[in-house]
Amino acid sequence: MEVNHTVYIGGKPTMNYVLAVATQFKDGTPTVMIKARGRSISKAVDVALIVQDRFVENTKVQGIGIVTEELTDEGGQPTKVSSIEIIIGKV
Amino acid sequence: MEVNHTVYIGGKPTMNYVLAVATQFKDGTPTVMIKARGRSISKAVDVALIVQDRFVENTKVQGIGIVTEELTDEGGQPTKVSSIEIIIGKV
Repeated sequence: MEVNHTVYIGGKPTMNYVLAVATQFKDGTPTVMIKARGRSISKAVDVALIVQDRFVENTKVQGIGIVTEELTDEGGQPTKVSSIEIIIGKV
Repeated sequence: MEVNHTVYIGGKPTMNYVLAVATQFKDGTPTVMIKARGRSISKAVDVALIVQDRFVENTKVQGIGIVTEELTDEGGQPTKVSSIEIIIGKV
């Protein structure tokens, strides 16, 4: 599946990311990937559902994947963090 | 897909829910549904990935669904909340 743009979810308000996704669709991008790690995962789900249900007509969540990522923390120690990828596209 | 048991994710520590899921598999349940709403969604993803990657051999996330649920809040007002369902099963 071709994915044209990725929006990374972080500490900003949910609606900032909803607008970032909506702007992509407005510019003609057919598919947007929403990515988040750790506690931002809940916000990523909110963003995807607000876009699909209320913000951009004729969009639908097309796929969701979750994986454990291995990172190195600030102290140089290896650590594991959950991550999510949500693909949303025009139908 | 037959789902034999559901674990609802709430405010307890992550490992409590990992153990709840692991206990189901130990008792012979072939498929467990993990459900969460709102901010608990991140924890649900953690639970599913810890079970799959580290805690119960030969299990795999088989499906993930997200929907907006409409609820009535404490003040009697309608409110919307994101929810997730993760199906994890023996492979």
